Amino acid sequence: MAPVAASPTPIVAPLPAVPSATVAKDKKAAARKRFEAVYTVVRDDLLADFRKHNMPEEAIEYYRRSMDYNVPGGKLNRGLSVVDSVAILKGRELTEAEYFKAAVLGWSVEWLQAYFLVSDDIMDSSFTRRGQPCWYRVEGVGLMAVNDALLLEGAIFQMIRKHFRKDSYYVDLLDLMHEVSYQTEMGQLVDLITAPEDRVDLSKFNLSRHRTIVLYKTAVYSFYLPVALALLVCGFPVEKKNESDPDYYKLALDILLPLGEYFQIQDDYLDYAGTPEQIGKIGTDILDNKCSWCINSALARATPTQRAILDANYGRKDSAAEARVKQVFHEVGVDEQYAQYEADSYARINALIDAVPEVRSPCGEAVLRRSVFRVFLEKIYKRTK
Amino acid sequence: MAPVAASPTPIVAPLPAVPSATVAKDKKAAARKRFEAVYTVVRDDLLADFRKHNMPEEAIEYYRRSMDYNVPGGKLNRGLSVVDSVAILKGRELTEAEYFKAAVLGWSVEWLQAYFLVSDDIMDSSFTRRGQPCWYRVEGVGLMAVNDALLLEGAIFQMIRKHFRKDSYYVDLLDLMHEVSYQTEMGQLVDLITAPEDRVDLSKFNLSRHRTIVLYKTAVYSFYLPVALALLVCGFPVEKKNESDPDYYKLALDILLPLGEYFQIQDDYLDYAGTPEQIGKIGTDILDNKCSWCINSALARATPTQRAILDANYGRKDSAAEARVKQVFHEVGVDEQYAQYEADSYARINALIDAVPEVRSPCGEAVLRRSVFRVFLEKIYKRTK
Repeated sequence: MAPVAASPTPIVAPLPAVPSATVAKDKKAAARKRFEAVYTVVRDDLLADFRKHNMPEEAIEYYRRSMDYNVPGGKLNRGLSVVDSVAILKGRELTEAEYFKAAVLGWSVEWLQAYFLVSDDIMDSSFTRRGQPCWYRVEGVGLMAVNDALLLEGAIFQMIRKHFRKDSYYVDLLDLMHEVSYQTEMGQLVDLITAPEDRVDLSKFNLSRHRTIVLYKTAVYSFYLPVALALLVCGFPVEKKNESDPDYYKLALDILLPLGEYFQIQDDYLDYAGTPEQIGKIGTDILDNKCSWCINSALARATPTQRAILDANYGRKDSAAEARVKQVFHEVGVDEQYAQYEADSYARINALIDAVPEVRSPCGEAVLRRSVFRVFLEKIYKRTK
Repeated sequence: MAPVAASPTPIVAPLPAVPSATVAKDKKAAARKRFEAVYTVVRDDLLADFRKHNMPEEAIEYYRRSMDYNVPGGKLNRGLSVVDSVAILKGRELTEAEYFKAAVLGWSVEWLQAYFLVSDDIMDSSFTRRGQPCWYRVEGVGLMAVNDALLLEGAIFQMIRKHFRKDSYYVDLLDLMHEVSYQTEMGQLVDLITAPEDRVDLSKFNLSRHRTIVLYKTAVYSFYLPVALALLVCGFPVEKKNESDPDYYKLALDILLPLGEYFQIQDDYLDYAGTPEQIGKIGTDILDNKCSWCINSALARATPTQRAILDANYGRKDSAAEARVKQVFHEVGVDEQYAQYEADSYARINALIDAVPEVRSPCGEAVLRRSVFRVFLEKIYKRTK
């Protein structure tokens, strides 16, 4: 698309915001396209490996379909953030080879996400995901989706092995992936026993429980993992070389977990307060008995009467019940609480970022730049979708 | 238990076979008990780690229950064979520390097995496992079992990291586990698309397809993995040091895959021909549309009339249909085919074992002894349960 300013006879002078937004949009689309090209390479490697093992054509075709359906269709924020973080840390454009390796790690996060989503949807009896039926609801799939999830996870180690086996940080990549997966599964366990889809018991809910679920189930893999992968690929060592070195990974964790928590609380709030036009879907957390920040915030402030209304109406598949819950949310001031939480979080995370020492990696090439964290925060702050 | 010979006034002289069988049985029970003690240590480490992460008590209790229910209740053949193989390779009793590490690897195979069984049972809609309800059918579990399976797998990397992180072969252990899991999942995929529980189509079955399923889904993790782990812990390198060195892992694979295939074909045959007294369960492969060796062997020899009977009766939940299938198996000579297959396999695998060069490991301590393979074969040959 030609930039607006290139239009031959402008009637009115172009507004500066318009071309820059368009350029940004074009740039974003190009970045996505470049990243998506790596998906095809990785997927085809995996399929070639199946073929090398003499798997039947039918199995290869099924596997391709499973990957195409589940891996590349999301927003790709997690995967793209690996590539972006590596470029920020290196402080320059990546070479073709560097880009490719960073993108493979980015895709490993997207594969991990696909693995969690396919299995979570089965456990939650969900219906749709990314605007299409959940994978396990697709004709001819059903509970084979359990094994498909396992293969999606297994593929991560295939792609990492293929491209990183010779790198000094290979073993650290594996440890990181294992640790992050395990912690996510811990978070999923706590979520499942706290808020089973079919049995409402609000006495199990509280803000501390919500925090455990959010940090373990979402923040670690969505926020910490991409940056930790970028740090590894940029040569930041997991173990200190000198006593005076900062613990790069701890620093990243201490910023990215609160950031991930903030992101999820926003998500919870938008599910309740966002319009379908804003969030692109109809919020169902109240109907689905989700252990959302909103219900926990309301429970912390509810009078006995309001609490009784919440107990009687939360997690019922009934829109009148949902409206009664929303009314209590409104009365106890969930909206004000959220506004306060958002302002506090933004200030607190900014302060954490300001305190990051912008040190060089021991190999000398990359710098732990604050902007690695800042770009995450700015993408999220006051988002409405 | 006191040995029979110690009885104060023997009425008749004890038969030599009796005490030796009793001693062997006692020895086996003691070996199992020693191995089981390591389970408790590993499990408690995993639970302590949950506690360190401040997981709620309810989650810790649930996790303990999931492990106790799914990990230690089997025959433990796979796990014990790691310990036995290490002792054979070293040619001596293991020290306490060596025993412990070998046993942790043994348990990692049992955890892997639990992970496969929990997820397979969900996919197969199975009812019982090891004489009790399948985990996903237990009250309060349901499809949370999917995440429990993921945690069982994740735990493997926790225990390996805790006890092997500093060993030179740590990264090889990880690669091995990933490769074996992935191949098992490949086998499971082929099994699921070949023999869906609810749609019978014998045109998909043949002996070559059966072979792919058996090698990938069972033989690799049940036979190759325990020995490969023992080789790693005994210092046999994955990559050749000298051009003249044998490829230890390839040698092991070339014997253990046919051995695993033989084991599974026996299993398939016993499901059809064994009495419930022999095999400790009632065979259901015919009713369940399983891609068993028997049906494939029968299909390869059936006349068009017999084939029509198989098409009409295989995989029907109906004992009259099952009897008609068995009648065809009988007519086409499945029993004779099996006897021939067993004799051929035994001779072929023995010849492979005889050809193993009994070389010393580069670190000098262990020897690649033929008996590592021979004990497997002798345990299996002509078993009736």
